[in-house]
Amino acid sequence: MTTNARAGGPEAPASGPAVLPRSASPAEFVDAARAGNHRAVARLVSLVEDASPALREVMALLAGRGRGAQVVGLTGSPGVGKSTTTSALVSAYRARGSQVGVLAVDPSSPFSGGALLGDRVRMQEHATDPGVYIRSLASRGHLGGLSLATPQAVRVLDACGFDVILVETVGVGQAEVDIAGLADTTVVLLAPGMGDGIQAAKAGILEIADIFVVNKADREGAEQTRRDLKHMLQLGPSDLAGGGWRPPVRLTVASRGEGILEVVAALDEHREWMERTGELARRRLARTADEIEALALSSLREQMGSLLEGRGLPALADAVVAGRLDPYTAADRLVAGVTA
Amino acid sequence: MTTNARAGGPEAPASGPAVLPRSASPAEFVDAARAGNHRAVARLVSLVEDASPALREVMALLAGRGRGAQVVGLTGSPGVGKSTTTSALVSAYRARGSQVGVLAVDPSSPFSGGALLGDRVRMQEHATDPGVYIRSLASRGHLGGLSLATPQAVRVLDACGFDVILVETVGVGQAEVDIAGLADTTVVLLAPGMGDGIQAAKAGILEIADIFVVNKADREGAEQTRRDLKHMLQLGPSDLAGGGWRPPVRLTVASRGEGILEVVAALDEHREWMERTGELARRRLARTADEIEALALSSLREQMGSLLEGRGLPALADAVVAGRLDPYTAADRLVAGVTA
Repeated sequence: MTTNARAGGPEAPASGPAVLPRSASPAEFVDAARAGNHRAVARLVSLVEDASPALREVMALLAGRGRGAQVVGLTGSPGVGKSTTTSALVSAYRARGSQVGVLAVDPSSPFSGGALLGDRVRMQEHATDPGVYIRSLASRGHLGGLSLATPQAVRVLDACGFDVILVETVGVGQAEVDIAGLADTTVVLLAPGMGDGIQAAKAGILEIADIFVVNKADREGAEQTRRDLKHMLQLGPSDLAGGGWRPPVRLTVASRGEGILEVVAALDEHREWMERTGELARRRLARTADEIEALALSSLREQMGSLLEGRGLPALADAVVAGRLDPYTAADRLVAGVTA
Repeated sequence: MTTNARAGGPEAPASGPAVLPRSASPAEFVDAARAGNHRAVARLVSLVEDASPALREVMALLAGRGRGAQVVGLTGSPGVGKSTTTSALVSAYRARGSQVGVLAVDPSSPFSGGALLGDRVRMQEHATDPGVYIRSLASRGHLGGLSLATPQAVRVLDACGFDVILVETVGVGQAEVDIAGLADTTVVLLAPGMGDGIQAAKAGILEIADIFVVNKADREGAEQTRRDLKHMLQLGPSDLAGGGWRPPVRLTVASRGEGILEVVAALDEHREWMERTGELARRRLARTADEIEALALSSLREQMGSLLEGRGLPALADAVVAGRLDPYTAADRLVAGVTA
């Protein structure tokens, strides 16, 4: 796929053909974003971050517009070279003409932290490339936090015509695992030494990794780390990622671009395997179900809050205190009111 | 009020006139419990602990049967003598003919812990008194935990004719504060020394206390603790407990029964003040509203869980993946299904 093959894709200049006023309607922003106006894309992602009431309309406008972008999650402990690897992957995908969106997610903070600013610097070689959109993602308004905001931001970029969406997660532990569930393919990065292999097993990342990358492979111990990983993968269940995929281990020196094409090849293979086996459809179904559930719970909590501020609850409490009603029946009526 | 003045009250022998089979209906258990059968009372409280489905029927049967028992919360750090004080208060209330129910609540554990077993030993002088019902309270089934189970257990004892219900909470911090909200009158116990006064201020118990008791007042520093408390109360807002009540500070040596009648007098004064000012009605309304809200949230969570296990969510996720639906609309339908 070449950049010229797609009219109206995000290949248009980053400044866009027209600067939309902030008062423009959601439909106008969606049209502009889908025509390649990066400022409009940014505005839509900001609506996601703010959990804006306008999101409902935006998501309704985007339904059916997804183009099936390849969503790749990159995760790993601090210092393994996530941003450098992401940047090298962007270059590789751009070289073959793909439009690339990058979301940098920090699950440890509701606001994007300092680490992401540093990451952005490493990404700056792509800053003037109109085929690349880079964004760090915070969650300022969502009750469900980044686990709600991230799939929505992916949804926006997918509908805006990006072929590949790289979701880079800063952070470790459970949040990392959760975010990994939002991607089609999860890449776990390690660096040689520091007992990373064993740490990996502890953090449960053996289960979430579709591809392992041992970055900084010019350092001592890279080959040992690969062997440790291979060994652990053989000890584990045979179908770690389901359906017979055995996660490959690739060595890279991302700062020099070494081994990056092999990672892209592994990503292509995994994508092909997922399409062949139905795993891609299964994963997308599962993560969409998670997204709907999170939205539903968030909506119920909000509605309950509104009702509590109103007059429903005091009247019900009064009836229970007076003995005209039992608390369960009162709760039933409160629930019925919530959803009336 | 004398014990003989009340036919059918809990003054009946603890063994009850008849041992009901476990297969007896909720209505039969309620009738027996209200006729003074302590085993039936125990069975009803066990239904509360287990969050039994039969609770709905029990609560419906009990609605309007409450007799307006005086609900007294006793709280304080471990070692201040809560159980000894509770036991002494039971004796004082029994001496004037009141039926007394005691609930020992440990919010720090979903199952009643070892501490409560020790407490029960201290209570054993009342074990053979048919006018006293003592029960430690766990929460084995409730999603809402003890904050749901405790008001329901109080509701059971109130409808069974107990005049005074003492709710003793083991534990410190937020759980203590939450449980305190379940009583008409909250007694905060302190012991001399150990900087308890300052700890009290930190834990926010100045705000929840209607009455302070400095127990172990034969120890050095009791008078100083009282002065510290008085001083802090003067520094605080003038209406700490609302409506002009200024929490008195009483000194006791509960193990010898000293000062206990003065605590009972303070409880009577507080009750009278609450009735005069409408504060009693306000508090009961507020805690009933909390109870209904907790039941409603618990019910919504359960219903959502049932629906997720069914076929609703997969079908909605499928429609979103296929682009026929946006995730917000899908979430709306999931919520509508929950409450249909």
